[in-house]
Amino acid sequence: MKKRELRVGLIGTGFMGQAHVFGYATAEKVFDLPVRFVLDTVADVTDDAANSAARRFGFETATTEWRRIVESPSIDIVNITAPNALHKEMALAAIAAGKHVYCEKPLAPLADDAREMTEAAEAAGIMTQVGFNYLCNPMLALAKEMIEAGELGEIRAWRGVHAEDYMRDAAGPWTFRHDPAGGGAFADIGSHALATAEYLCGPITRVMGDCVTHIPERPSRDGPRRIEVDDIGRALLRFSSGASGSVEANWLATGRKMQHDFEVYGSKGGLAFSQERFNELHYFDTDDRKGRQGYRRIEAGPDHPPYGNFCVAAGHQIGFNDLKAIEVAGYVRAILGEAEEPFNFRAGWRIQHLVETVHRSSREERWLDV
Amino acid sequence: MKKRELRVGLIGTGFMGQAHVFGYATAEKVFDLPVRFVLDTVADVTDDAANSAARRFGFETATTEWRRIVESPSIDIVNITAPNALHKEMALAAIAAGKHVYCEKPLAPLADDAREMTEAAEAAGIMTQVGFNYLCNPMLALAKEMIEAGELGEIRAWRGVHAEDYMRDAAGPWTFRHDPAGGGAFADIGSHALATAEYLCGPITRVMGDCVTHIPERPSRDGPRRIEVDDIGRALLRFSSGASGSVEANWLATGRKMQHDFEVYGSKGGLAFSQERFNELHYFDTDDRKGRQGYRRIEAGPDHPPYGNFCVAAGHQIGFNDLKAIEVAGYVRAILGEAEEPFNFRAGWRIQHLVETVHRSSREERWLDV
Amino acid sequence: MKKRELRVGLIGTGFMGQAHVFGYATAEKVFDLPVRFVLDTVADVTDDAANSAARRFGFETATTEWRRIVESPSIDIVNITAPNALHKEMALAAIAAGKHVYCEKPLAPLADDAREMTEAAEAAGIMTQVGFNYLCNPMLALAKEMIEAGELGEIRAWRGVHAEDYMRDAAGPWTFRHDPAGGGAFADIGSHALATAEYLCGPITRVMGDCVTHIPERPSRDGPRRIEVDDIGRALLRFSSGASGSVEANWLATGRKMQHDFEVYGSKGGLAFSQERFNELHYFDTDDRKGRQGYRRIEAGPDHPPYGNFCVAAGHQIGFNDLKAIEVAGYVRAILGEAEEPFNFRAGWRIQHLVETVHRSSREERWLDV
Amino acid sequence: MKKRELRVGLIGTGFMGQAHVFGYATAEKVFDLPVRFVLDTVADVTDDAANSAARRFGFETATTEWRRIVESPSIDIVNITAPNALHKEMALAAIAAGKHVYCEKPLAPLADDAREMTEAAEAAGIMTQVGFNYLCNPMLALAKEMIEAGELGEIRAWRGVHAEDYMRDAAGPWTFRHDPAGGGAFADIGSHALATAEYLCGPITRVMGDCVTHIPERPSRDGPRRIEVDDIGRALLRFSSGASGSVEANWLATGRKMQHDFEVYGSKGGLAFSQERFNELHYFDTDDRKGRQGYRRIEAGPDHPPYGNFCVAAGHQIGFNDLKAIEVAGYVRAILGEAEEPFNFRAGWRIQHLVETVHRSSREERWLDV
Repeated sequence: MKKRELRVGLIGTGFMGQAHVFGYATAEKVFDLPVRFVLDTVADVTDDAANSAARRFGFETATTEWRRIVESPSIDIVNITAPNALHKEMALAAIAAGKHVYCEKPLAPLADDAREMTEAAEAAGIMTQVGFNYLCNPMLALAKEMIEAGELGEIRAWRGVHAEDYMRDAAGPWTFRHDPAGGGAFADIGSHALATAEYLCGPITRVMGDCVTHIPERPSRDGPRRIEVDDIGRALLRFSSGASGSVEANWLATGRKMQHDFEVYGSKGGLAFSQERFNELHYFDTDDRKGRQGYRRIEAGPDHPPYGNFCVAAGHQIGFNDLKAIEVAGYVRAILGEAEEPFNFRAGWRIQHLVETVHRSSREERWLDV
Repeated sequence: MKKRELRVGLIGTGFMGQAHVFGYATAEKVFDLPVRFVLDTVADVTDDAANSAARRFGFETATTEWRRIVESPSIDIVNITAPNALHKEMALAAIAAGKHVYCEKPLAPLADDAREMTEAAEAAGIMTQVGFNYLCNPMLALAKEMIEAGELGEIRAWRGVHAEDYMRDAAGPWTFRHDPAGGGAFADIGSHALATAEYLCGPITRVMGDCVTHIPERPSRDGPRRIEVDDIGRALLRFSSGASGSVEANWLATGRKMQHDFEVYGSKGGLAFSQERFNELHYFDTDDRKGRQGYRRIEAGPDHPPYGNFCVAAGHQIGFNDLKAIEVAGYVRAILGEAEEPFNFRAGWRIQHLVETVHRSSREERWLDV
Repeated sequence: MKKRELRVGLIGTGFMGQAHVFGYATAEKVFDLPVRFVLDTVADVTDDAANSAARRFGFETATTEWRRIVESPSIDIVNITAPNALHKEMALAAIAAGKHVYCEKPLAPLADDAREMTEAAEAAGIMTQVGFNYLCNPMLALAKEMIEAGELGEIRAWRGVHAEDYMRDAAGPWTFRHDPAGGGAFADIGSHALATAEYLCGPITRVMGDCVTHIPERPSRDGPRRIEVDDIGRALLRFSSGASGSVEANWLATGRKMQHDFEVYGSKGGLAFSQERFNELHYFDTDDRKGRQGYRRIEAGPDHPPYGNFCVAAGHQIGFNDLKAIEVAGYVRAILGEAEEPFNFRAGWRIQHLVETVHRSSREERWLDV
Repeated sequence: MKKRELRVGLIGTGFMGQAHVFGYATAEKVFDLPVRFVLDTVADVTDDAANSAARRFGFETATTEWRRIVESPSIDIVNITAPNALHKEMALAAIAAGKHVYCEKPLAPLADDAREMTEAAEAAGIMTQVGFNYLCNPMLALAKEMIEAGELGEIRAWRGVHAEDYMRDAAGPWTFRHDPAGGGAFADIGSHALATAEYLCGPITRVMGDCVTHIPERPSRDGPRRIEVDDIGRALLRFSSGASGSVEANWLATGRKMQHDFEVYGSKGGLAFSQERFNELHYFDTDDRKGRQGYRRIEAGPDHPPYGNFCVAAGHQIGFNDLKAIEVAGYVRAILGEAEEPFNFRAGWRIQHLVETVHRSSREERWLDV
């Protein structure tokens, strides 16, 4: 039986473009999807970049004109991993052409743009996905299952952080991540912290933001350039459930490479998680016998879907690219009508809205309803 | 050569009273102090409690009248570990009698009272100490030394937490810790988080507090009693150094027994600490060779005074009561004129002031200068 | 430019067969290999198994006759992931047909058979690979680089363990892993412990084995069946370098899922590793400053090839299947003449020889030269 | 009510002599013992050392003649922390004088001497104690309770290690620890590993030893001196219970300060312990719910006697010197007839016998019955 083909176009060939390609390759094998992916066309700004990516990743065609992907009648899914500022134009064009659109985060620098993209996608009836791959972790699925099943009792508190150190060095140059339009630590990685918080604890209703710029200028080709975006952002939170919490986004966190961590405390149990060891979830159960209580280190295994698709034995661990494969698989199941969109444009818009509310709260130095 | 005697009176014989006694016993042996402690008189509210403590701890005399301790001409140091609400009256009486006063935290429920006590002590010229024993950890001394020596470069960010779970159970009864006068999680344990933050990073200049009550009532002998104090308190911070930060105090942190933790990030290094493993300090040095960098787990040893007084070999570990012994030794050295008071009434007042400012900031929902 | 095709045949479709398929899919994308893999034919014992695997993995053809793979003129590489007892016959047939052979461990239950296979392969000039994928970890490459560069000084001691708990339950049935011909914990997983030991510390010259059977019988379809193989095996070791050491293989290690761990101590430094967190290597450097020494947790990153092929940022982590992809890539480079065979039949034979020597030493209760 | 006095004499004022003094001081306060310790006389080889210790520790009298302690009619307990080679003579003299004897490990360099001491003590009816303080850890008591209660099921495997690095540096001088009479890593710290193994798993019945000398000579005042004792010792073990196991003693373990660790695996559960974090015990329970299993980190607390004597709240941690206080308290209770001797001369002799058997097994390169 020949599998149905889904033809993929990719715009942008950097870190995340590569991750998309790896995701398709792995997802196809690991999830026994009823489709076969064909890497149709890849676009980048120069011939060299596009051709090199085509050769390296196995795309049939390379182009420097991203519109050729959007306009190609054969392509089913348009993957957008180009710079953030271009997401909107590309996505709207792809939606208009009836393509499914899989866009890296942030959906757009401004929430209004994200809203426009969402509404266009919903009107067109195409399937969308925004890349929040940390949510695809089987251990987060376990955490969600436990919380929803009431294993932790009533959730009272959330402490989330996403800290890395890639902007630690004040001598590091100005980059697009410092662009006042949508840039800064909180938008870049605080968005992950917010996404995880809402994934597990439900809607955030109020925020008190605090976004700080510690490195006031950075070198650029045109000499020192003033930095207007935050490099550390924090927010105090209220959830609709009644829980309270906080998140921190920090790209000056010296020595931290992937501290996307949280602790969540319920009346009957607690969970602690670190992306630094993301195949583990630490769980405290107040029902454990007296004198035998403690946080237990649950190692990812076949009891935690879809881990078992990757490996039949616990403790062997999945990797970052496998999270992307899980993301791809979930999205393709939505395209095939087998499941809901896991994290669609509406969800991406929601995150941008939260980010903007935190930014505004920080500027106005007051709590804001979301 | 006969050592000089210092005679000790103790008011209150609970957890912290006991810790003081252990502290004197250990300090005398471990630090080769030029004094000998004599446990003179112990006071508690009932004859039974006082006599039992006298016998158990080795005090010469027991009393139910704490004023007898203050008035005794032979006693040099008055230790106050009675309920918080009584600290002020007792301390002022002891100061008036010319005694040195060693008072458990909080110095007083209200900052104004703490100020009054401080001013009285300073006017009288006696030596004071407030029990913030977590600060006595050799690994915190190491952290302070590293920060002050510039080993971490410019300090940018602080993340502190003090989380335990002793109020997790909503069926747990109302206690003095829920008393609106000076009670609540932030006053109780947030004070520790603030003390550590200022010990290492210097003065806090602005705060944005957020204190929440998640368990609205608790059983009491007179039926359900409304809880008016916070059980989780958070604060966003600014330091005079320019650093930003946050602290969280949480006594609903299911599964956490002693999470007095922090991470501090500088331009050249980072530190991570957990009281759960308080004989360790984790240190990231950006000068480490490429490909060989990582947080290193420094184990307490003789290189970290005064660890060596307890044990000549690294890795053997000191315990909670040893922190108290270090506190005692520092205080006695101040009494002997050999050193500054390590954490005197003025420092205790400062913490109360910070706590009150966070509380007020939370009520007013706005940033406040300290 | 069209990439050269390498056509793959796979015999056996279980856990490791699947891992091979995932390995090819990932390697092709991640390593930008100058070849394109075509999944040509897959064989399993039943039509259903073979067809299902073909469909799931994307093989062009399915068969129940493994010899059709060996005989197919189009196939370049024969992957053998069938039961251990069949490895020899299959490999020899493939070698005779001039195929490259990629065989799962153990190469053969008996060292003599492994030798025969090795000699046949070397005589035929084809390229071979045995699946010891834990060795493909970038952090082990780092450890090897450090040891070889003398960063640890003279190596004195090795402590290795491979412990899991999949045979913990005495009610678990007899399986092929209990077959006296080549079975048992030490052969199954002690082989991994030995491979890692020699990979990092060089040749083992003497062993004192101790293999124990703790569960004396297990249920089988024909009633209780006596267990003749060890479920725990230990060995004391000497290395040609002068180092001493030990390994333990244990499949009754309750709660352990993948404890392939080691510590290695040199005159100038130490390393500690756990497969449970295999993206980390812990390193102690005696040259670190006084009072600042400690095991540092190095997180895998682009400084540790080939991690960077998977992800451009440190700390994101690779997974178990990625280790297999690294193994595939190394093997293909050998086939292309670009590199040495990473772990060829001769290396696999060596491990079988070591295992047999440990077994014999255990039976004879004396040290044996290897 | 006046407490009964127990008068203490101490011979030797180094690391362990100091630990004894700290132990008495803490035990008296913490355990509410029905006795009061009086530090009567301390002996060391020079006037200076003896006087300094007397002053520092608070002994009434100092002497350079240890026999004055043994002969003093007032002294109840003789503490021997002098060099190992002197233990026998001192202990026999003290026993002959009817004193209780508390001797640091090793009881004597040779098992025969330890036997003689044991028999003398038992004939005299005095109470003895050998300092194996790691056994006094509440978390080991918990482990023992769990094993004895069958919480782990049938015990199958033990892996013990005691590794430190204080002899790592080949330029470090020859010391008494290198004396062929009773010296070496296995005697020094392997004895601890054996003591813990038997404490938790019961009698060892067979051993296969392997003791190695990696640093063949060390500087001494008389020039290079040949090292005849092991610096790494390993032993394979059988227990009377049917369990198998191993221990390693290593004083070249670069970076390890106090790795007195073990893992023990039973049919129903497992335990993992590290002295590096000795207020924790890690426990795996196979009865935990599917998908929620994992090693749980039990933190020491009042549920684990006698932790509660030190602190009423879990997670605060006891220190190394507190272990000594627990040891003292247990011994004094034996002296008072309230309890069995916790680790008496017979137990100390047992350990020496095991050590000698391992040494002999290593020399003869064969398994030996114990």
